[in-house]
Amino acid sequence: MGPGPSDVPSRVLQAMARPTLGHLDPQFAGMMDDLKGLLRYAFMTANPMTFPVSGPGSAGMESCFVNLVEPGDTVVVCRNGVFGGRMKENVERCGATAVMVDSPWGEPVDPAAVASALEQHPQASLVAFIHAETSTGVESDAAEIARIARDHDCLTLMDAVTSVAGIPVLIDDWQIDAVYSGSQKCLSCTPGLSPVSFSERAIERVKNRRTPVQSWFLDLNLVLGYWSSEGGRSYHHTAPVNALYALHEALVILHEEGLEAAWRRHRTMHEALRAGLEAMGLELPVAPAHRLPQLNAVRVPDGVNEAEVRRRLLEDYSIEIGAGLGEFAGRVWRIGLMGASARPRNVLQCLGALDTILSDLGAAVNTGVAVAAAREALATPAAA
Amino acid sequence: MGPGPSDVPSRVLQAMARPTLGHLDPQFAGMMDDLKGLLRYAFMTANPMTFPVSGPGSAGMESCFVNLVEPGDTVVVCRNGVFGGRMKENVERCGATAVMVDSPWGEPVDPAAVASALEQHPQASLVAFIHAETSTGVESDAAEIARIARDHDCLTLMDAVTSVAGIPVLIDDWQIDAVYSGSQKCLSCTPGLSPVSFSERAIERVKNRRTPVQSWFLDLNLVLGYWSSEGGRSYHHTAPVNALYALHEALVILHEEGLEAAWRRHRTMHEALRAGLEAMGLELPVAPAHRLPQLNAVRVPDGVNEAEVRRRLLEDYSIEIGAGLGEFAGRVWRIGLMGASARPRNVLQCLGALDTILSDLGAAVNTGVAVAAAREALATPAAA
Repeated sequence: MGPGPSDVPSRVLQAMARPTLGHLDPQFAGMMDDLKGLLRYAFMTANPMTFPVSGPGSAGMESCFVNLVEPGDTVVVCRNGVFGGRMKENVERCGATAVMVDSPWGEPVDPAAVASALEQHPQASLVAFIHAETSTGVESDAAEIARIARDHDCLTLMDAVTSVAGIPVLIDDWQIDAVYSGSQKCLSCTPGLSPVSFSERAIERVKNRRTPVQSWFLDLNLVLGYWSSEGGRSYHHTAPVNALYALHEALVILHEEGLEAAWRRHRTMHEALRAGLEAMGLELPVAPAHRLPQLNAVRVPDGVNEAEVRRRLLEDYSIEIGAGLGEFAGRVWRIGLMGASARPRNVLQCLGALDTILSDLGAAVNTGVAVAAAREALATPAAA
Repeated sequence: MGPGPSDVPSRVLQAMARPTLGHLDPQFAGMMDDLKGLLRYAFMTANPMTFPVSGPGSAGMESCFVNLVEPGDTVVVCRNGVFGGRMKENVERCGATAVMVDSPWGEPVDPAAVASALEQHPQASLVAFIHAETSTGVESDAAEIARIARDHDCLTLMDAVTSVAGIPVLIDDWQIDAVYSGSQKCLSCTPGLSPVSFSERAIERVKNRRTPVQSWFLDLNLVLGYWSSEGGRSYHHTAPVNALYALHEALVILHEEGLEAAWRRHRTMHEALRAGLEAMGLELPVAPAHRLPQLNAVRVPDGVNEAEVRRRLLEDYSIEIGAGLGEFAGRVWRIGLMGASARPRNVLQCLGALDTILSDLGAAVNTGVAVAAAREALATPAAA
């Protein structure tokens, strides 16, 4: 119940343990095609260029930047937490200039500030932002940011690591040009893969580059020779075969449940957790309209040693929750309700354990009421 | 029995299917330390900077190049197959100049040519070469190449993707400064991880760079904050937890058998396969002194459709062997005897199946003798 990896269902773990086929085996190639189709569903896109990068989310992020950015380019980067800072690093290491649009930690990206940055930097070619900031638990308005970028003739690059399958991610509706995600958050797969998707406009830009992509491993022109179904697969690198079995199974599970049902389940579990936390008297620093159901920032009560609480949760209850990062370090916990972790048992056990530990540490909280409040909320599921 | 992935033992697959711990969990951190120790054994090194890159071998290759090479540098790249060409791509995408030392396909790197290139390019700062060329099945003299590089004040970068655990890889004895390998060859783990090791001299060079490393994901300065045991682990990217369980188990298996025994086993299985192939009248194009036991190039007999043979092996016998690449395309098969695939059953079944298929296709080979010849060779194991 940290910021990911989330609980991995045994179906996914067992899929991962199937015998390793060769990465050019015809049966495996069939599974790759299935996998691409399932990813298009998860991203709500028809983009043919939708596939998993053979590395974690930060490799997916780098895959998007090194392919779409060239030396001398200007990129507008929105930062409202840790991961916008990582985007800045990526832009600069591509030899480009990052124009930063900063919003306070715990708040969403301000679309007006994005528009203003684009007016001041008409040469910008790309707008990059985090849909669901894992470091703060905040959702930004992806549709609006993408609209503004289009109005200024920019492509849009979106981090959907924590959002996919937890809240609506509508790549085609929103006209996002490049997106990367992670396997280990709301998809409830093992960590290590980063699903990505590129629009036709993005592919066009990659094909018309003036300079080679600085990464051989991540060069889309080469990777697609392996992941494309057309014209036979050519060897680029050895795919992580067993990890792909696992991702396939995780996506089959998502498809069985249905995206809308998964979004609703995350919302319902969040409301139950929130009810319990608030009954205890704990505060959620993010405004309700921008809260991510799958990643809950919770203010640490005054006088409580936050690391001690996390240690006891882990050692005594086998429950992992996340520490604060950056400006939130020492001030918030991050409780994840992602994928298979977003279920009543996790919500109730976590609240019960927190209740006991905080009482034991003498924190000024209402004890003995959190679990009942969550149970009541669970009895009235959230709307779609 | 292709060029990798090799057979993965069920112990490794089952380890991979263990419940996913958090990448910052203290128990997981303990396993990471174990894993680093086991990798040092596999590489025969005391280098503290020995860890698995969270991506396949080509990410390991890129990790070495982007950290050790800067724009304007000159790198001597030895090419005697496909992977030297990939090194050239890496060097050039770092903004450096690659001085190519070419040797014919099927032959080892010529140390005299390396020395001559270094004399002509005294500004060179790095010599890069493939220890075991997977595209041709050739071993090059790593100790000698590294010695020549040192004599010219160059660091040495070695590809050991296919060599580790199959033939001696003695990083400290040979004074190799940077090495990368792959999980899916003679280590018999699932594909997706690239163990690397860096000498003190290499780390020194990374720390004294004039320019930032162009990859954020692969920047050693950052990655080591997570993989270093000193000063607490700091989050860089989410490690591929389950893949690391698998690599740990594969290395425990290697440690139980012992490196010397593993090298001997690969040699013995190779001699048995060779005896069987030669009894059939098939030719091995690589000279005996440079043959890799774990990757056997076999000349396709005249008039035989090589793809048809591979298709029948796969469909009728569930045996995968590799096609030729580059100059060897259509002319050789590549039969892998890597890790758990290097065992009598695989050798005998493969020979038996090849015998039947080639007879059936009317190839000019001696039939009915290959398996007996291999059995006889197996009765007299190779020396250490």
